[in-house]
Amino acid sequence: MTALQTDATNPSQLLIPPTDSAGRVSQFMKQLQDEICDRLEELDGTQFTEDSWERDEGGGGRSRVMREGTILEQGGVNFSEVWGKQLPPSILKQRPEAEGHGFYATGTSMVLHPRNPYVPTVHLNYRYFEAGPVWWFGGGADLTPYYPFAEDAAHFHRTLKAACDKHHAEYYPVFKRWCDEYFYLKHRQETRGVGGIFFDYQDGRGTLYRGPYKDSAAAIYSQQLSEIETRSWEELFRFIQDCGRAFLPAYIPIVEKRKDIEYGDRERNFQLYRRGRYVEFNLVYDRGTIFGLQTNGRTESILMSLPPLVRWEYNYNPEPDTPEAELYETFLKPQDWANWHSS
Amino acid sequence: MTALQTDATNPSQLLIPPTDSAGRVSQFMKQLQDEICDRLEELDGTQFTEDSWERDEGGGGRSRVMREGTILEQGGVNFSEVWGKQLPPSILKQRPEAEGHGFYATGTSMVLHPRNPYVPTVHLNYRYFEAGPVWWFGGGADLTPYYPFAEDAAHFHRTLKAACDKHHAEYYPVFKRWCDEYFYLKHRQETRGVGGIFFDYQDGRGTLYRGPYKDSAAAIYSQQLSEIETRSWEELFRFIQDCGRAFLPAYIPIVEKRKDIEYGDRERNFQLYRRGRYVEFNLVYDRGTIFGLQTNGRTESILMSLPPLVRWEYNYNPEPDTPEAELYETFLKPQDWANWHSS
Repeated sequence: MTALQTDATNPSQLLIPPTDSAGRVSQFMKQLQDEICDRLEELDGTQFTEDSWERDEGGGGRSRVMREGTILEQGGVNFSEVWGKQLPPSILKQRPEAEGHGFYATGTSMVLHPRNPYVPTVHLNYRYFEAGPVWWFGGGADLTPYYPFAEDAAHFHRTLKAACDKHHAEYYPVFKRWCDEYFYLKHRQETRGVGGIFFDYQDGRGTLYRGPYKDSAAAIYSQQLSEIETRSWEELFRFIQDCGRAFLPAYIPIVEKRKDIEYGDRERNFQLYRRGRYVEFNLVYDRGTIFGLQTNGRTESILMSLPPLVRWEYNYNPEPDTPEAELYETFLKPQDWANWHSS
Repeated sequence: MTALQTDATNPSQLLIPPTDSAGRVSQFMKQLQDEICDRLEELDGTQFTEDSWERDEGGGGRSRVMREGTILEQGGVNFSEVWGKQLPPSILKQRPEAEGHGFYATGTSMVLHPRNPYVPTVHLNYRYFEAGPVWWFGGGADLTPYYPFAEDAAHFHRTLKAACDKHHAEYYPVFKRWCDEYFYLKHRQETRGVGGIFFDYQDGRGTLYRGPYKDSAAAIYSQQLSEIETRSWEELFRFIQDCGRAFLPAYIPIVEKRKDIEYGDRERNFQLYRRGRYVEFNLVYDRGTIFGLQTNGRTESILMSLPPLVRWEYNYNPEPDTPEAELYETFLKPQDWANWHSS
């Protein structure tokens, strides 16, 4: 047995990935892209078009986009697998052990912009990194409704919670808070939507929260758990697969329920206005976007997440006692959606 | 005579601002806002609406917006005057002498988004800072056409060059290059438009280029000049005033020439698509936007620069031999517009 093989009886050996780690994860990421695209094509009746691309510094991907679909005004589902000599500074700051080492990264990311304002926008991204002595999984999925349906938010959260609970009772409570805090527009004092789950730097060791904000709700909650047991690479990979496969059952029933609700200019205008927040978040705060632009990623694939049509309006405020006001009052603030009960 | 008064015969005294510096600059910035708004209202036949606002940490401003005008689909002209205990980190990095001191900042900024795709979008910003032992002026103006008219780019540049040349023969050559480099979208490998002039940290001492990129064309050109003579606060203030007042003669004739050209869906769609670059630049690169968001500025005023309606399209490329392709080939790369001659 070589030093690189895993000895399941030795906790420190659990933290070593198998020799075929990169290949197994990238294969799963491709399958996830395929499964999501197949189901969306079936539902929409429209095909994705695919661009395969290569990256000069190493690696490549396949970008799939659906435009002017029946349900999806635009949807982008990307798979990528990239490698290079050095992680960008924004990641090295969080993972100094990777300094001076080459890196490998693979992942699938997706943003869907439905046409009907009653159908929420949704985002998913799961990713895996290896860099010298370190490896980690990250990702999540979050929902951004335009109109307030508490049962949709509850269904989305409960489906993701069930996938998390299979692996650890504390995953959902930490990763749900982390999501609320990550997808937050500080300059607007709003969450991007109703959240979901989000996590990063999961390498099987110690505390679950590995974000930069020590005074955040996720950090404080995670500290209360103190160190949780070591989790193996295999267990984390199974967890990522269950999260990825929870996406379709979390989202598709919401689309089916809302896609045929009639709407007019008022709802369309509000949707276009709220899409502006998606642009603001992705360009000002999103680490995935920044990572992509810093690593000379493929700009068209990185910015595929931006909505097809967007509106900004100076000093807009919703009228009191309207669905638009309810969105701001309740849905753009963190809520315990998994425990929501219809009254 | 006290130490704070200016002794024009002593070069080191030239670098001390007069005691009424802040008041005089802010008064000019307000006048500039008034003059620009008055002329635009006259031309458009539509009124600006004004919001006066105050900032908790100190200061305030007046934001003026015109919406759904005859010519301007949206235009925002802001005056602000803010002060506080500490400049934000992004500025302290460039001006470490200001560390530990309070600051004062005043300025006028403007972005106009015309409806007709043949009329270019335009931006202006002039500003003044004081912080402990340091003070400086910054700003500029730049033009972003959607359709390629070389004579418009030449007129805009020549008008700004004339204002610069009154004060120093080397202002325009340095500040024009600085503008090309500042308003550059690295991830698109495009300039934002045809540029104009841009400068920062002008405090009367030494080299003109004070940007972060030592290997930029502006830096290299500026180094070749070696140190230029000390310029007094009064002279720099006169320079800023001449730049500000050059805006209307630089831009208004272009509007008058292009505002009645007929256009269709093709031109409108291209304009909405190109407006996406304006959003990308302002949210990803613009220091003014980042400064505003970091200092808890008024979000609605800061983001008033974003266009009213914007479109993104995955993998768009203009058809060869079209005006849209000519924009990319010639107008989104630095050109010597001031020396352009019609052939």
